[in-house]
Amino acid sequence: MEEKKTGLWKAFKNKINTFLHNKELKEKLYVIIFESDTPKGKLFDVFLIGFIIMSVLVVILESVVTFSDHFRLALQILEYVFTAFFTFEYLVRIYCSPKPKKYIFSFFGIVDLLATLPLYLGFLFTSARYLLIIRTFRLIRVFRVFKLFNFLEEGNLLLVSLRLSSRKIFVFFFFVLILVTSIGTIMFMVEGTQPDTQFNNIPNCIYWAIVTMTTVGYGDITPVTPVGRFISACVMLIGYTIIAVPTGIVSATMIKEHRRRSELRCPHCFRTGHEEEAKYCKYCGGKLDEFS
Amino acid sequence: MEEKKTGLWKAFKNKINTFLHNKELKEKLYVIIFESDTPKGKLFDVFLIGFIIMSVLVVILESVVTFSDHFRLALQILEYVFTAFFTFEYLVRIYCSPKPKKYIFSFFGIVDLLATLPLYLGFLFTSARYLLIIRTFRLIRVFRVFKLFNFLEEGNLLLVSLRLSSRKIFVFFFFVLILVTSIGTIMFMVEGTQPDTQFNNIPNCIYWAIVTMTTVGYGDITPVTPVGRFISACVMLIGYTIIAVPTGIVSATMIKEHRRRSELRCPHCFRTGHEEEAKYCKYCGGKLDEFS
Amino acid sequence: MEEKKTGLWKAFKNKINTFLHNKELKEKLYVIIFESDTPKGKLFDVFLIGFIIMSVLVVILESVVTFSDHFRLALQILEYVFTAFFTFEYLVRIYCSPKPKKYIFSFFGIVDLLATLPLYLGFLFTSARYLLIIRTFRLIRVFRVFKLFNFLEEGNLLLVSLRLSSRKIFVFFFFVLILVTSIGTIMFMVEGTQPDTQFNNIPNCIYWAIVTMTTVGYGDITPVTPVGRFISACVMLIGYTIIAVPTGIVSATMIKEHRRRSELRCPHCFRTGHEEEAKYCKYCGGKLDEFS
Amino acid sequence: MEEKKTGLWKAFKNKINTFLHNKELKEKLYVIIFESDTPKGKLFDVFLIGFIIMSVLVVILESVVTFSDHFRLALQILEYVFTAFFTFEYLVRIYCSPKPKKYIFSFFGIVDLLATLPLYLGFLFTSARYLLIIRTFRLIRVFRVFKLFNFLEEGNLLLVSLRLSSRKIFVFFFFVLILVTSIGTIMFMVEGTQPDTQFNNIPNCIYWAIVTMTTVGYGDITPVTPVGRFISACVMLIGYTIIAVPTGIVSATMIKEHRRRSELRCPHCFRTGHEEEAKYCKYCGGKLDEFS
Repeated sequence: MEEKKTGLWKAFKNKINTFLHNKELKEKLYVIIFESDTPKGKLFDVFLIGFIIMSVLVVILESVVTFSDHFRLALQILEYVFTAFFTFEYLVRIYCSPKPKKYIFSFFGIVDLLATLPLYLGFLFTSARYLLIIRTFRLIRVFRVFKLFNFLEEGNLLLVSLRLSSRKIFVFFFFVLILVTSIGTIMFMVEGTQPDTQFNNIPNCIYWAIVTMTTVGYGDITPVTPVGRFISACVMLIGYTIIAVPTGIVSATMIKEHRRRSELRCPHCFRTGHEEEAKYCKYCGGKLDEFS
Repeated sequence: MEEKKTGLWKAFKNKINTFLHNKELKEKLYVIIFESDTPKGKLFDVFLIGFIIMSVLVVILESVVTFSDHFRLALQILEYVFTAFFTFEYLVRIYCSPKPKKYIFSFFGIVDLLATLPLYLGFLFTSARYLLIIRTFRLIRVFRVFKLFNFLEEGNLLLVSLRLSSRKIFVFFFFVLILVTSIGTIMFMVEGTQPDTQFNNIPNCIYWAIVTMTTVGYGDITPVTPVGRFISACVMLIGYTIIAVPTGIVSATMIKEHRRRSELRCPHCFRTGHEEEAKYCKYCGGKLDEFS
Repeated sequence: MEEKKTGLWKAFKNKINTFLHNKELKEKLYVIIFESDTPKGKLFDVFLIGFIIMSVLVVILESVVTFSDHFRLALQILEYVFTAFFTFEYLVRIYCSPKPKKYIFSFFGIVDLLATLPLYLGFLFTSARYLLIIRTFRLIRVFRVFKLFNFLEEGNLLLVSLRLSSRKIFVFFFFVLILVTSIGTIMFMVEGTQPDTQFNNIPNCIYWAIVTMTTVGYGDITPVTPVGRFISACVMLIGYTIIAVPTGIVSATMIKEHRRRSELRCPHCFRTGHEEEAKYCKYCGGKLDEFS
Repeated sequence: MEEKKTGLWKAFKNKINTFLHNKELKEKLYVIIFESDTPKGKLFDVFLIGFIIMSVLVVILESVVTFSDHFRLALQILEYVFTAFFTFEYLVRIYCSPKPKKYIFSFFGIVDLLATLPLYLGFLFTSARYLLIIRTFRLIRVFRVFKLFNFLEEGNLLLVSLRLSSRKIFVFFFFVLILVTSIGTIMFMVEGTQPDTQFNNIPNCIYWAIVTMTTVGYGDITPVTPVGRFISACVMLIGYTIIAVPTGIVSATMIKEHRRRSELRCPHCFRTGHEEEAKYCKYCGGKLDEFS
């Protein structure tokens, strides 16, 4: 009987092993799950989009009290079903990926994992299940079905300009931070002595300064003294002017980058005047490299 | 007597028929109603603008309680008169249009129909009559009298750029939607436990995130916890930065389109340097096509 | 005695006449009052700026209850003094202007008159005196002392672009108006049935739609129903996107105008490449006209 | 004994003198404190950044009541320690600076002084200690460790454009001020008669006009009359349009400056086409001056 058992066990282990190393199945699954050029791959992606959107809607609906009171059981069952499906999908992705480790630690691998975890965490911390909303990020990859993101992979002028000017934008925000801290402190000194004021500590005043400078203007914290209102008016006009700065930085980089590209010389035929998204010379078909 | 009746009926049918197929009358009416180059056509359009604006004002005034209480009868009579006129005009448009079906299913044909229906619907659903406001859309066509929309028909740089970059703007909004959903959920977890909070479900929190990111900032839902205020400040600064993105997308497309056009080569005389709105070569008068 | 009187009268009339036709005095006054190149003219302008600013401050201070209660008499006396001075100055301007009629009906002539009238009107309507604030517009002319407005007289690129694109901006606002009216009506139908709502008539709803679309967002009127909030979110995102349109229109015109100018050909030496503000050819000194 | 004392005194004076004129020490300290290229200089700067940020945090935390109640003593001790350190650092900076006077009256010299004074002033005026927040401005200099500000020293296109268009932006704000004063007064006349209105004096109305035009829209002061709301809507649309103006001014200057630079001719080899940040000719290596 013992032997029979070990025999069964061996047979089972063999089966698992052949399954785990079934190269053909892996490739088939890979094409379906990771790519979206074949009809099956497209179908899978469309279904996945539907599932993600539905599972996000379930999370959102669960937060609405009137809904969750009536359909608590239905919503919870749906949540378990979706999480089970996404967990299974995650495991299959690891299984059929040629380099599982690379996938697991890639941006989308982590998002895929995080899209399944919160429900399990929800057994420990009740509100953690709302983290399921991170599933929406999975849409970024899946939406490639609609060929919307081609331009993201091209040497897009805007994205390159944004990346090139990111340091300047960082410095800009650093200055905004200094400005906002100073203005907040001044307002704390001016308005902080009023009775029942919301300018009751510097962090609140900094929050107010950001609300004002970005022209959001909630109105939950507003100055009441003449001096405070005068300072507010100045802050608004400053905010109004510096709106132009990030736009200006990006535009300036864009103009410069645009000129640099249009002057790019083909290393093969030495001609210029290529489109800014061009990767190949339009005269001789040679690859355009950045050195020239 | 029977015969007399049928005779009368036949005569009437004949008259109707001659009327319905009166080509001359149709053409006359067409020129007056659809075109605006003749003095009569212009006069008709000016009257129509007046009627549309007045009928819209009647709808607006009817919604003001103090007004509608005093002049209910007058307003209702005016509404019936305007609707009768627009119904009659719609029928005449169908009558004198050379291709009635094409007109009926065109954008403006549908608007013309919708501009008359709401009052009839109003007998069934009281508030439906306010849909009469759709009449304002009729102004778009009629305002062509003032030659304001010439540039809309030309290959306008801005409009072309907007159309060319619409896919990028769509992707941008898609990212905004993901961002807003995530931020809304985080705020629900952070602020949702406060007593009497308006952050009481995720849809409300998403609404708050949109109100904040677009820098509208009503202030009907505002964070009160320090963490919530810190997240809000970050959301505002993000919103402030990404204001530049749609402007940047449109500008980038505009610059590119501008260059493409100024390099457009006339297919007849092979010369470049045409104005970007040019449809004909300024050297040889040949038609400029987009292929070259 | 009669004769003596007529003699005196004649002498007086003569004096007035010689005064009124004293060309030298007129020219002297003209240089001082209308121009600002001589030291005296500059001094006069600087004093005038001081007087205008002070008189505007008096009007502003008068509106502050705590101030006007304590210094009512002083403020009123100052107001009479300033008005008397400005009235006298207005009369002198008419007197010394070479073409009085042209001055009186010019923009600044009307502003100068309006800057004196409100106090006299204030005897009839109490609040009319606040119209004295129109004096601030006088500063526009007077600030030329600081040579700030040179660029206004040059063929400034921005102003020309604004003027050239004013028709497009008008059409843009026309579309915004149609949009805002439609959205307002829809919100009236959606939110108007709520108890104690501020969406109680269409004009208020249109006001709300403008407040929302321009991202001002007071928060005095805010949606409370889920449908209303969803529509609001859409309106905000639309408003957020069309912020780019006026900027885009002006930029497009600017780029085009910029190119047109840089390609402007001197009608004398037929060379191009002039600065966009240039009025004279930089090669031969000939006047650059727009025809070429 | 007297002699011994004078001897000691002399020895002490000598020591002080040698110390004060110790050129080697001065140079060593200068390199550490003022520069950041050596490892020691970098270390000093990093420590300084930490100290500044911590001292700013202490000021901010002290303003939060719940915090300052529990840790009052700790916070005060920290404040004294930081101020002592910054005072000492300030004195060392004067000591090792080759031109002490120039340092003291430079922008950063004044900021360094102001960063130490408020605590001493705090003995006289309680709230003055919050001025310690001015220390954040010290970060501007110190952050150069991270090589973030290189581009500030180059002939940056954006900064140059901002400087070149500062006069136009000033004029723009001057017009905004006139507009805002006029609109405020009109609103005071329209809304000022309402009971319990916040439009109770012209300064408040001007504050409201700025809040509205910059699209901040707190909602602490909002119109309630139909006329007031109509005027508000107009003000918003005006504000919405003139958002484009500062951006437009900067862009126009940027395009012009960009062209001027790309046409800059090297005074040595007479070739054009240099990068806009170039200081040296890329063909012959000669210095590019602005005259050419």
